[in-house]
Amino acid sequence: MRGAVMYAPGDVRVEEREDARLVEPTDAVLRLSAACVCGSDLWPYRGIEPVGGATPMGHEYVGVVEQVGGAVKGISPGQFVVGSFFASDNTCEICRSGYQPSCPYSVIMGSIGTQAELVRVPHADGTLVPTPAMPPADMIPGLLAASDVLGTGWFGAVAAEVGPGKAVAVVGDGAVGLLAVLAAKQLGAERIIAMSRHEPRQRLAREFGASDIVTERGNEGVTRVHELTGGFGAHSVVEAVGTQESMMQAIRSARPGGHVGYVGVAHDVSLPGVELFFSHVHLHGGPAPVRRFLPELIDRIWKREIDPGKVFDLELPLDQAAEAYRAMDERRAIKALLTP
Amino acid sequence: MRGAVMYAPGDVRVEEREDARLVEPTDAVLRLSAACVCGSDLWPYRGIEPVGGATPMGHEYVGVVEQVGGAVKGISPGQFVVGSFFASDNTCEICRSGYQPSCPYSVIMGSIGTQAELVRVPHADGTLVPTPAMPPADMIPGLLAASDVLGTGWFGAVAAEVGPGKAVAVVGDGAVGLLAVLAAKQLGAERIIAMSRHEPRQRLAREFGASDIVTERGNEGVTRVHELTGGFGAHSVVEAVGTQESMMQAIRSARPGGHVGYVGVAHDVSLPGVELFFSHVHLHGGPAPVRRFLPELIDRIWKREIDPGKVFDLELPLDQAAEAYRAMDERRAIKALLTP
Repeated sequence: MRGAVMYAPGDVRVEEREDARLVEPTDAVLRLSAACVCGSDLWPYRGIEPVGGATPMGHEYVGVVEQVGGAVKGISPGQFVVGSFFASDNTCEICRSGYQPSCPYSVIMGSIGTQAELVRVPHADGTLVPTPAMPPADMIPGLLAASDVLGTGWFGAVAAEVGPGKAVAVVGDGAVGLLAVLAAKQLGAERIIAMSRHEPRQRLAREFGASDIVTERGNEGVTRVHELTGGFGAHSVVEAVGTQESMMQAIRSARPGGHVGYVGVAHDVSLPGVELFFSHVHLHGGPAPVRRFLPELIDRIWKREIDPGKVFDLELPLDQAAEAYRAMDERRAIKALLTP
Repeated sequence: MRGAVMYAPGDVRVEEREDARLVEPTDAVLRLSAACVCGSDLWPYRGIEPVGGATPMGHEYVGVVEQVGGAVKGISPGQFVVGSFFASDNTCEICRSGYQPSCPYSVIMGSIGTQAELVRVPHADGTLVPTPAMPPADMIPGLLAASDVLGTGWFGAVAAEVGPGKAVAVVGDGAVGLLAVLAAKQLGAERIIAMSRHEPRQRLAREFGASDIVTERGNEGVTRVHELTGGFGAHSVVEAVGTQESMMQAIRSARPGGHVGYVGVAHDVSLPGVELFFSHVHLHGGPAPVRRFLPELIDRIWKREIDPGKVFDLELPLDQAAEAYRAMDERRAIKALLTP
């Protein structure tokens, strides 16, 4: 099968990889309908995370089940399914409490690589959620978004306790940040402040439900959020970047007693205890338990209540994965979809 | 009036201070029935926080109203009242949301000094809560505890989302940690793990409701908590120390999706973003909004449902404040009560 492999920062190649096959009896093998490049794939691409030799890439996926292992009960060949970037059994105490990425048996799909024609999915029963029927082609980008960026933005909004009557700020205008705006709108937020200085992203933020755009960053951005929220700060802030600056911007944008939901994968972040103590904020986040939200998200997409697929502003054949990475790295694209 | 003043680390003197008097029309002046020394007073006493010249000490207080300013409506001379260590208006949006220490008009009572015969309380209407009648003498220590250590332990338990069916761990065996155990019991926790290596404190922890005692610290303590909670960690952890070690012990003792309520005043704490991200814990804390809980706590004490006054294991006249500090510093006393 063909699949994307990163050899070094800036060096992504699509090449022949060994065909995905069943390994455990709880596995399934999917033929991917679409794959994509994630903002988090850019960390190693930019050399900020190490690349440990030739690494299969990708962790977002939707597709049709080709084969299932002997122990798989709820998933059958021919079904169209959506998975999360963590495979998990979905039966243990941690999964049942809604924290599937922390399942003791979880497998991170990035270690398998879904920017490919086929993929092996561990814990198929726990991980995969079938759609009601084969989806129309125009719905596939939305379902693919549910597999990570929508689920992650949604978790950010839930972790930030977004709800009716609340003022929400979103730090980060990548696909996750934009979909956190969409989530905040769906969850009933009264005011949604998107922090972005890129015109096409501002436009999409408004389309997803942002009521205000703040272009300032750092402490100037914080000041603007306070000005827009009666001087107190936002009730809920979603952090969708993962840097020291963005985390502090998020914490400082929240009012005392407010909630920060942080979903940007933390890089060299160190939170000052004294400031955090006196901020009185709630902090929650981490790798999004997308599986918790998948049934609801698929339902909303299926009913066309939301169209998170709009974050894909570039579509390329899998063979051009290198260009997809380049376009996202250079911020020419918000998110690139790859067709195998 | 007589009052305790800290001149330098280890140097506390009781001396004549200017009588407390009304300054703002919203002030009240109380004659203190009892005062006490707080674990947080030990930070400057030990030289870990700077002492900026002669500093009046103390921030916990109960007493009888002597005088009220012209704008005070709900508090009258002769009433017995309990206050919090932050004076606050209790009418602004932040107070109404339950975060009175972050009130834009808050005054920290430690800047006024309550280890004295009289004290000025700003925002008397917002800050003070009268008891139903003049309390009996044996109830005064409990009411004094409500003013800070009980309210702080209670907030720690609430911030850690303690509730029925949950396993709770408490890091720190000072008065706040012990009263967090009491709070956890009252809030219905199923299992309460007190982390302590001091026999008298272990005894009090058991009396307040601890089901298990863990004497190990650091990562060994974390391992013990995991062993006691099915390998996952506690649902709720209260942190009541404020050091790097205790914060990390608390975070690592919580299960994914669990809640850490931290109320130990942070000193040189820096939280590693990556570990926090993958821990999946909820983090909330800060200066306890004691005012939020005072009516309920006074009610429970008044009905003798709880006796938080048991944390006072030393009682001295105000004039011997220096010995009270020494006894707490040397861990000969859990908490010292001072009678003016």
